[in-house]
Amino acid sequence: MDKIKIQLDESDIPRQWYNLGADLPTPVLPPLGPDGKPISPDMLAPVFPMNLIEQEVSTERWIDIPEEILNILYRWRPTPLKRAVYLEEHLKTPARIYYKDESYSPPGSHKPNTAVAQAWYNKEFGIKKLTTETGAGQWGSALAFGCKLLGLECKVFMVRISFDQKPFRKIMMQVWGANCVASPSNETNAGRKILEEMPDTPGSLGIAISEAIEAAVTDKGGKTRYSLGSVLNHVLLHQTIIGLEAKKQLEKAGEKLPDIVIGCAGGGSNFAGLSFPFVAEKIDGADIKILPIEPTACPTMTRGPFAYDFGDTACTTPLLAMYTLGHAFVPPPIHAGGLRYHGMAPLVCQGIVEGLLEPRAYDQRESYKAAVTWAGTEGAITAPETSQAIAAVIDEAEKAKAEGKEKVILFNYSGHGLMDLSGYDAYLSGKLTDYPLPDKELEKYTADLSKLPKAEMRKSGKW
Amino acid sequence: MDKIKIQLDESDIPRQWYNLGADLPTPVLPPLGPDGKPISPDMLAPVFPMNLIEQEVSTERWIDIPEEILNILYRWRPTPLKRAVYLEEHLKTPARIYYKDESYSPPGSHKPNTAVAQAWYNKEFGIKKLTTETGAGQWGSALAFGCKLLGLECKVFMVRISFDQKPFRKIMMQVWGANCVASPSNETNAGRKILEEMPDTPGSLGIAISEAIEAAVTDKGGKTRYSLGSVLNHVLLHQTIIGLEAKKQLEKAGEKLPDIVIGCAGGGSNFAGLSFPFVAEKIDGADIKILPIEPTACPTMTRGPFAYDFGDTACTTPLLAMYTLGHAFVPPPIHAGGLRYHGMAPLVCQGIVEGLLEPRAYDQRESYKAAVTWAGTEGAITAPETSQAIAAVIDEAEKAKAEGKEKVILFNYSGHGLMDLSGYDAYLSGKLTDYPLPDKELEKYTADLSKLPKAEMRKSGKW
Repeated sequence: MDKIKIQLDESDIPRQWYNLGADLPTPVLPPLGPDGKPISPDMLAPVFPMNLIEQEVSTERWIDIPEEILNILYRWRPTPLKRAVYLEEHLKTPARIYYKDESYSPPGSHKPNTAVAQAWYNKEFGIKKLTTETGAGQWGSALAFGCKLLGLECKVFMVRISFDQKPFRKIMMQVWGANCVASPSNETNAGRKILEEMPDTPGSLGIAISEAIEAAVTDKGGKTRYSLGSVLNHVLLHQTIIGLEAKKQLEKAGEKLPDIVIGCAGGGSNFAGLSFPFVAEKIDGADIKILPIEPTACPTMTRGPFAYDFGDTACTTPLLAMYTLGHAFVPPPIHAGGLRYHGMAPLVCQGIVEGLLEPRAYDQRESYKAAVTWAGTEGAITAPETSQAIAAVIDEAEKAKAEGKEKVILFNYSGHGLMDLSGYDAYLSGKLTDYPLPDKELEKYTADLSKLPKAEMRKSGKW
Repeated sequence: MDKIKIQLDESDIPRQWYNLGADLPTPVLPPLGPDGKPISPDMLAPVFPMNLIEQEVSTERWIDIPEEILNILYRWRPTPLKRAVYLEEHLKTPARIYYKDESYSPPGSHKPNTAVAQAWYNKEFGIKKLTTETGAGQWGSALAFGCKLLGLECKVFMVRISFDQKPFRKIMMQVWGANCVASPSNETNAGRKILEEMPDTPGSLGIAISEAIEAAVTDKGGKTRYSLGSVLNHVLLHQTIIGLEAKKQLEKAGEKLPDIVIGCAGGGSNFAGLSFPFVAEKIDGADIKILPIEPTACPTMTRGPFAYDFGDTACTTPLLAMYTLGHAFVPPPIHAGGLRYHGMAPLVCQGIVEGLLEPRAYDQRESYKAAVTWAGTEGAITAPETSQAIAAVIDEAEKAKAEGKEKVILFNYSGHGLMDLSGYDAYLSGKLTDYPLPDKELEKYTADLSKLPKAEMRKSGKW
């Protein structure tokens, strides 16, 4: 029997985060303000603390992880790298499949890696309270956790329909001391306006973002800021600890570099966290296939145009250069709630433009099929988001079998599915549906992008 | 910062289970049949496979763990021993608190340690299908998991009220391929009889046990057996891997033996699993305080008489010598469902009779208070059962502080609470109640025990 778990000691934990922005041959296009001109760091100051804004625009390759943050992460980090020998046996593949188990964090996913870091930097900056939005509650519970451990107040605007239908994540947030309200709420102008117009609205992530930002910037004491769980450069940065650990662990397992790196991508943070240290190797000449995986129901990277677009539905954020389905896109009700986002992290998008990353889309049912295979072999019940990555892993392992090649596949097991079991129920009882995006819908939602500043697709032509 | 996680390599996993029965100065009294005479192994053969019956009655101190079982356990074992430095800091205690994190198993608790072993031994014996009962679903999901990995069929009779109110554990079982039905069901004589008399009954663990045993023994092919998740000697045996790992890990951490060992106890298996290897040290002369913890609502060990009693409500099992609240005891609706059992493992009970173990009871609200302190310091959300142990840990750590002593406390973190969040909601909103057992209730339920054979309290007098 091969070794299943490759563990690291706490003393082996990475002491710096990796900033891909420093190494991309062509830089990410700058965020633009309402006037179409690049925004300055100062313009973000009411929303984020200056130390995180500095990280957001940093061109340093390596950024030190404060010792105090590591001391918090030790609760669950370094996470094990595991070898999926049981799945390999089941598939009879010559591929060696490794996965980074990020489900070990108390909230159950990779999200706390940045939640803890953001809470720490805000506290350093004198901030007393963070606001955020959450859909199904994965991010809200991670930020509640981070704030609790650092003694910050936390306010979460949770999309109404999830607040009502998924009470358990809300209870998690409350256990960690957060104040979680249904959005739209009566606590902000944005919320009150929507409630007046549509008292029965189920809410949306776009509305919740507007409420969370308003609650942060209108705080009279100036001690409140907003926190985002994905998309932005500094969020992706904090997640690179995953890939940096994985590199050390693969080495410990006697492997050189992986042939294939896979992660699911909604806003891009778990994918980036695992893959960016390997993208650096690819830039340096290594032959690695790097696959961000998304749902066919929300095919941002595989079918969306590369364009400047707003990060939220309400058009309150700066314009970001990214693949996008249009900020008004209404994603179908797939169970992988974390992958229902119209855009994608600009750093990931620029990697795609450069040809460093090869996005791929999977149907919901194929993902659940992969998840059930996983549960029956490796044993664990995976998050619906992660199951998208597993579908791609199984595909690549079968390809390796057909080719008779000993490929090394690495993927991010971004979270467990214990809070999201209803999708399994639907799948097992044959009630699950796929939602491939019709061309006409895509055209409808992306039509208005031409009215915004044009995003130039710059590439070095090396890949 | 001290070391948080003390990890073991897979090559360090214990290769034998420890049988406390071989070392107790006074043996456990034999189980009795309906005629009041000790039962023979043959009488159990329709219910359990002979290889497990041999383990049940074994007097060997060490029993080899088959390599094939270890190969399954490697999915999550060895589990880390963790030091609760964040709780220590919060309490400002000189005590060093260590815990064995059994929440790492895919079903989320210690239960799979025996589920996998039982499934393996049954398969070895030629059995194709296992039946069992489950209350809230913790044990049912563990056995479903074990059967799936070994290719056995699994049938779970789940108490009707839990089946209806807690659909998520049922979905877990289905993901692992088990057939889970509400009990009472129409599939057994026992179930049909109850349904005729009380069509709207919420069901009970007693009824579900009767159904599961009937379904096993009436199987025409003879290839079906019954499986129990606690109480019996062989079940406790399989759990001793927890304490054996913990001993190695404490040594690795530079500790000798713990001063205090703590575990919650419903049927006794997680408590026994951690503590029995340390009970052996105590028998050999070590000075260790060993505390099984139970709820005041179901105070089997602290208030029940030591007597022969049935293991189930329906009086179908052999009589076991144990502390008991009477087989007809109806436990109040505390959230720690795994601790709502009228009896206790005979091995644990004999340890109490001998004075080796010192049981203690905690109220539900005090346990939830401890769980919320834990979530805010160590970070994780604990199972309601485990929170009872944490309440005792906090008490002992505060005692060590008052005495200014550097005590080493070890406890079993038997499971996470992600599937049991409603109790937290009730606690946080002030709706949680304690249910101390009134004397009159205790008298009522234990009155009939005098009609059964008397259990002699034999003790060596050494403790």
